[in-house]
Amino acid sequence: MSSLDQIVSPIVGDLKDVENILTENTASEYSFVDMAVQHVVEGGGKRLRPILVLLSAKTVGYQGVDAHTLAAVVELIHVASLVHDDVLDEAAIRRGRETLQTKWGNKVAVLVGDYLHARVLSMLVARRSDDPAMAILADTTQAMCEGEVIHAYKSGDFDISEEEYLKIISFKTGKLITASCTLGAQLGTKDQQQIDALTAYGQQIGTAFQIVDDLLDFVEAPEKLGKNAYGDLREGKLTYPIIHTRKVCNDDEKQTLEKVLNPNTDENEAILAVESLFRKYEVEPHCLNVAQDYANSAKEALTTLPTSDAKTALENLADYVVSRDT
Amino acid sequence: MSSLDQIVSPIVGDLKDVENILTENTASEYSFVDMAVQHVVEGGGKRLRPILVLLSAKTVGYQGVDAHTLAAVVELIHVASLVHDDVLDEAAIRRGRETLQTKWGNKVAVLVGDYLHARVLSMLVARRSDDPAMAILADTTQAMCEGEVIHAYKSGDFDISEEEYLKIISFKTGKLITASCTLGAQLGTKDQQQIDALTAYGQQIGTAFQIVDDLLDFVEAPEKLGKNAYGDLREGKLTYPIIHTRKVCNDDEKQTLEKVLNPNTDENEAILAVESLFRKYEVEPHCLNVAQDYANSAKEALTTLPTSDAKTALENLADYVVSRDT
Repeated sequence: MSSLDQIVSPIVGDLKDVENILTENTASEYSFVDMAVQHVVEGGGKRLRPILVLLSAKTVGYQGVDAHTLAAVVELIHVASLVHDDVLDEAAIRRGRETLQTKWGNKVAVLVGDYLHARVLSMLVARRSDDPAMAILADTTQAMCEGEVIHAYKSGDFDISEEEYLKIISFKTGKLITASCTLGAQLGTKDQQQIDALTAYGQQIGTAFQIVDDLLDFVEAPEKLGKNAYGDLREGKLTYPIIHTRKVCNDDEKQTLEKVLNPNTDENEAILAVESLFRKYEVEPHCLNVAQDYANSAKEALTTLPTSDAKTALENLADYVVSRDT
Repeated sequence: MSSLDQIVSPIVGDLKDVENILTENTASEYSFVDMAVQHVVEGGGKRLRPILVLLSAKTVGYQGVDAHTLAAVVELIHVASLVHDDVLDEAAIRRGRETLQTKWGNKVAVLVGDYLHARVLSMLVARRSDDPAMAILADTTQAMCEGEVIHAYKSGDFDISEEEYLKIISFKTGKLITASCTLGAQLGTKDQQQIDALTAYGQQIGTAFQIVDDLLDFVEAPEKLGKNAYGDLREGKLTYPIIHTRKVCNDDEKQTLEKVLNPNTDENEAILAVESLFRKYEVEPHCLNVAQDYANSAKEALTTLPTSDAKTALENLADYVVSRDT
């Protein structure tokens, strides 16, 4: 398996430019706003969405710098949604750093999220006015919000089906990952088949990404994740591993699972119960297999595209999304 | 004094169209999202910002229907900011209706606010792509967020000056009211002097509006306001009447005021202390005078514009903003 650093080697210079754009375009005349925004933007993460924009553009032959702005825009949309997620989840840490609400309270966190969305709008407006990216990102942002609202609304609803859940995550996470690929592709080609291929890649990798994200919440050490383990579960948010377990387990075990979701249940008791069910039903390998199937479909979607370093990087990225441990 | 119904009589048909656009453009395929959004959008309010778009456009001779969409857009931006304000203020009721977080919790409220912002972006994108409204609204939304962040950050800071406060409210509230007038004007004329006149009107009326809003929080009955009295004060948010009182009172009284802002102070004790200082320093008439000065400046800004029903309506609206009791 390639490391992420190896995978992104064809675009390492571009990624530096994206970081500069992120810093320049989030500056506020109010130094406190500036500081709070830099805290979350520099918090970093993998920059998966910028990587997808840049690699998708390069895969279809694009060589300009316009991709850098779009890459920064999709990352800002992502960061803004994380800021609000952390408020909703009452998360104390994210990627090993204190969250905004830990440092400055919920109000500042909600408003900084709003501010980032506003900056995205400003950045889009400052681009070409006939830009098709705007419509795609408007649809994407709207779908992300719908997915988030529904996931929050269904919080604690034990009867959500796998299909329903997969649709919600295709809105919540998948749309922005897919848009990253589509936007990159549109920069480099007018060939709709190539654009569709990269869009399909994005859809598949997006689902793989979210299933693995859900799984890591259960199986990875909190120090490594930079956030609390079992965070989703403890706030009543059902995710793929639990929804799958509920589908395959017996009626007694279903009752145990339902109890685990009750916030009054002792945390250690809940964790032991989940670990036991995950072992019995081999939930971790199952989730990884499902995610790998999506990753394989993502790679297949690229077969009609010409061979290049960037295409190879996208193929490796699909595998990385499944095999990563953070 | 004219009632608001009388003032808006030249645009009553247009306002109905705006309501229809608001309903059509906030629909979601998820019925829960739909219901939550309709709850806040129908919650209504005075529709001050749509009224300003429509009257400004009409004042400079505009007769088309494009003003209806822009009027709906500015109202949605306003509603979205109210939804998040209510979360931040932990408000239980707004305009006599339960707030979203009372009905469905904080998470849904934060996310519905995000969703409304996303719909605004979609509506803007669906308009003409060369539209100057987009840049104005991008700047406006950004400034609103900056003002909100700074007001939340300064919450409980007793040393904020009148000038600093007026700058914050020009960002928080003033920018969207001003943009409403500018956008309406741009629809009807290319004459920059006319556009500047309506922009100046918007700036002045925006400040008048916010000072009266601040005052009503102290002097009006909660039943009438449809929200809790002294709400700003009790959550440590300094507004114009308190900032002014602090400036004119003696050192002992300053200490009393500072104590009032401490959430541990008994609520009735705090209210009595504020009432006594407001009487002694005639704070209510002072605030109304200051607001009326801004309203007068707003009316003066219109003098170069041709006489019309719409212009008269804007003049009456400036006085209404000061004399209203809700």
